[in-house]
Amino acid sequence: MKCPLWLQKEYLRSVIFDDETPAGRRFDIVLTIAIAVSLIILFVESIPALPLWLKISLGALEALLTVVFTIEYLARLYCAESRRGYALSGWGIIDLLAVLPPYLTYFLPGARYMLILRSIRFIRIFRIFRLFSFLNEGEMLLKAIGRSLHKIAVYFLFVLVLVICLGTLMFIIESGEPDSAFKDIGTSIYWAITTLSTVGYGDITPVTTVGRFLSSFIMLLGYTLIAVPGGIVTASFIDTTNDPVRNGRCPRCDAKVRKGDKFCSQCGEKL
Amino acid sequence: MKCPLWLQKEYLRSVIFDDETPAGRRFDIVLTIAIAVSLIILFVESIPALPLWLKISLGALEALLTVVFTIEYLARLYCAESRRGYALSGWGIIDLLAVLPPYLTYFLPGARYMLILRSIRFIRIFRIFRLFSFLNEGEMLLKAIGRSLHKIAVYFLFVLVLVICLGTLMFIIESGEPDSAFKDIGTSIYWAITTLSTVGYGDITPVTTVGRFLSSFIMLLGYTLIAVPGGIVTASFIDTTNDPVRNGRCPRCDAKVRKGDKFCSQCGEKL
Amino acid sequence: MKCPLWLQKEYLRSVIFDDETPAGRRFDIVLTIAIAVSLIILFVESIPALPLWLKISLGALEALLTVVFTIEYLARLYCAESRRGYALSGWGIIDLLAVLPPYLTYFLPGARYMLILRSIRFIRIFRIFRLFSFLNEGEMLLKAIGRSLHKIAVYFLFVLVLVICLGTLMFIIESGEPDSAFKDIGTSIYWAITTLSTVGYGDITPVTTVGRFLSSFIMLLGYTLIAVPGGIVTASFIDTTNDPVRNGRCPRCDAKVRKGDKFCSQCGEKL
Amino acid sequence: MKCPLWLQKEYLRSVIFDDETPAGRRFDIVLTIAIAVSLIILFVESIPALPLWLKISLGALEALLTVVFTIEYLARLYCAESRRGYALSGWGIIDLLAVLPPYLTYFLPGARYMLILRSIRFIRIFRIFRLFSFLNEGEMLLKAIGRSLHKIAVYFLFVLVLVICLGTLMFIIESGEPDSAFKDIGTSIYWAITTLSTVGYGDITPVTTVGRFLSSFIMLLGYTLIAVPGGIVTASFIDTTNDPVRNGRCPRCDAKVRKGDKFCSQCGEKL
Repeated sequence: MKCPLWLQKEYLRSVIFDDETPAGRRFDIVLTIAIAVSLIILFVESIPALPLWLKISLGALEALLTVVFTIEYLARLYCAESRRGYALSGWGIIDLLAVLPPYLTYFLPGARYMLILRSIRFIRIFRIFRLFSFLNEGEMLLKAIGRSLHKIAVYFLFVLVLVICLGTLMFIIESGEPDSAFKDIGTSIYWAITTLSTVGYGDITPVTTVGRFLSSFIMLLGYTLIAVPGGIVTASFIDTTNDPVRNGRCPRCDAKVRKGDKFCSQCGEKL
Repeated sequence: MKCPLWLQKEYLRSVIFDDETPAGRRFDIVLTIAIAVSLIILFVESIPALPLWLKISLGALEALLTVVFTIEYLARLYCAESRRGYALSGWGIIDLLAVLPPYLTYFLPGARYMLILRSIRFIRIFRIFRLFSFLNEGEMLLKAIGRSLHKIAVYFLFVLVLVICLGTLMFIIESGEPDSAFKDIGTSIYWAITTLSTVGYGDITPVTTVGRFLSSFIMLLGYTLIAVPGGIVTASFIDTTNDPVRNGRCPRCDAKVRKGDKFCSQCGEKL
Repeated sequence: MKCPLWLQKEYLRSVIFDDETPAGRRFDIVLTIAIAVSLIILFVESIPALPLWLKISLGALEALLTVVFTIEYLARLYCAESRRGYALSGWGIIDLLAVLPPYLTYFLPGARYMLILRSIRFIRIFRIFRLFSFLNEGEMLLKAIGRSLHKIAVYFLFVLVLVICLGTLMFIIESGEPDSAFKDIGTSIYWAITTLSTVGYGDITPVTTVGRFLSSFIMLLGYTLIAVPGGIVTASFIDTTNDPVRNGRCPRCDAKVRKGDKFCSQCGEKL
Repeated sequence: MKCPLWLQKEYLRSVIFDDETPAGRRFDIVLTIAIAVSLIILFVESIPALPLWLKISLGALEALLTVVFTIEYLARLYCAESRRGYALSGWGIIDLLAVLPPYLTYFLPGARYMLILRSIRFIRIFRIFRLFSFLNEGEMLLKAIGRSLHKIAVYFLFVLVLVICLGTLMFIIESGEPDSAFKDIGTSIYWAITTLSTVGYGDITPVTTVGRFLSSFIMLLGYTLIAVPGGIVTASFIDTTNDPVRNGRCPRCDAKVRKGDKFCSQCGEKL
């Protein structure tokens, strides 16, 4: 007796793991929708006063999806080239964690921990990226950001030191007031970050004249500093956008390249 | 007997549809003012406690404008090259919708639906653009944005995924507090968008220490990410501003062009 | 009998109107300090519960400064090359307005109007710019902004139309709620500007789910659009910073210039 | 008898002052951790309702750290090449101030002043920078900012003048309202800064129609102006990033340089 098509390992593998065959793409789309539905259930279930019939329907749908995800996980395990390799890989662990939560309900009654476990299912949404041909653009963007990561790290360290200084200073100025919202230095640093990043919730605001002077200074500083990482990324981005060979430099290692070169002679980067 | 000038189709058409003859421009200006006045009436009528005499005057003015717009619509229909073509075109439908609402009052008593219909009149304000010679600049701006649309789409997808992750995480952290403003995951995601975009209303704010730590992280992230689309658009804008021929590349298809070329040999774009 | 030095028109003129002689600079510095002190008095007097002795001292100091400014105005009138020309020039009118308010107290008793008149004195602080050699930098900045003014105007028109649309839409969505803060369309447009510009006061916030969805969209839009004028100005700025002759174009009229040219052959701009 | 190694001046100096030997780096890391712990104690102690046992433990740990810092200060004094030079240098004074506070408790009972003194210990955290090889990036960033400092100063002066004008105007408009939050001109200027910088706390908000119109204008202005310093820094940054020799100009003094030059012939800057 011949094994049915959907049980043959090679065929199953091409559907589940490959995203370039039509069947593989269809499988990815169905899976993405299933994950999105599972997420929406998670969001809706978090609303406190929900009618009973909706609670029960959502629970049933969630149970169904868990069964689907369990079958998918077992199928992946079954047709993976190396079962051990898949089970211990990043995606393998995430797929397992996405399936486990409902089964754990019988052992771990704490609803809080359940929520965390079920949120992990969210990570699977990243499979969505396989569906798009955006990746070239995204890669370019990440490259530009990656190349300026060092500069951004210095900038962040600078902002952090600034915020600790200004928060402490503000605590010294404002904490003397009765009913001050600047209760401790931690809160003051939180306020300084809120202000410097121009978010400005307004739950903590200065009331003394000196405090308002300092706040104004922090605001104008934040107003100016907000542009710096943009400048860094833009400068890097323009470099990435430019034709590397016309610049005469390798985009990865910055070594000189000649006009006809197809690969960098120093680091092998494709030009 | 000769037909009076203002009833001759050709003359009427040149006034109503053409925006380059002096009469056509004057007509456009008067029409734009009429639409603006109609809008201001809409805005003022939305104020709850209005004295009776003002309500009546506004109603009368609105009725007058409706008559004017009706005549205009009929005139457009009368002198259009193809009546059917105009009536079914985008502008034709908008012009009709701008005229209908007051007549519908007798049939549809719901004030809410009236408001929506009357708001449609607003779309006509876009006729204002015909008055300005700005269009070259605007086109250039839109081109620069259009060319970087793919990159911006990737960026938005990234921000969306980020916001869902951070919102869910924040719900797990903050929802345990009594009287927490993070009532459900949807609200938490809304909060995450408010914070990441540095808007910071302050109607929902974290109160736990861990929540404030995470908030600070989101703020600083938003503070850095805010600059990325700017970088993308700027890089594209600089490319658009530069003389394409001096760059030696076609601005549309990026193919190489020679110095004397007036059109791109690949896509026919005028250089 | 010889006229004393400080009454000779030429000497007085060089002190008052010239800002390159040492005496002229010293006069400018003293005048700037006097204006600043006058401003600080204006600010302090606006504080509601002020002790009587401070009120009287500030009043006396203000009276003294008014006498000084009156003498200065008369001196300017006395030594100006054309008295009529100075009196009717922009600075001449501002100088007069800066002097008048205290004298008008006897005729106009309304404190509110007084405040406006006295605020005009503030315009004189712009004389401060004469003290700095910043002007080259500032001129360059203004040039860069000026060259991209058309593009910024298009952008603003676009933002305005957007904000009116979104504000009206938000009013339709939110005004049905009891105790809604979206009282009329004007308030809703004000809210839309607050949100799009990422200011986010939090005095008006959406409470419905649909309203929060639309808000999130506006925030992310504002988050992206915030970068556009920056891109425009930056692109223009880079153009202004670059050596015009190396670009082979005149910075004013964009005509081609040759390498040795000192002036643009088309518009006479110095290169 | 031979002096033990850790008492030999040369060895001690290489450990304490040098950050390139392995022992010196280890010393720096330990010191940085000690300063960070001291800071965390400062933050935690600022929380109002702290259990007694924690207060005592923190006090003991702080006392221990003070002894460590005292020994470190004496060791620095002992092995410095010029004791007087170190004691009077910036770092020397900061190190002394970091050690003094606890000893001063016996003389100055005011807790407020203690807090200020103990905060100074914070400045020592800047030693952290010695641990990183970031400095090249940071230097480049600071250079780019430094080169555009003049332009940023002009921009700030402009923003300041704008904010004073708008704040005064807003006070005139809003102060007539009962229970207005615009209590005096100082508060109004503070509000104008909050709004222009897009922070928007919401503790002070306009309630009149005219006030909201002006606010909207300020927001849109701030929304546009926020990008200007970014443009300035970016333009400067791109200049700094570009290969100076290919630009044909020295990055420091902007003099022309030839292609093979290794140093600027005017200012000696290494190219």
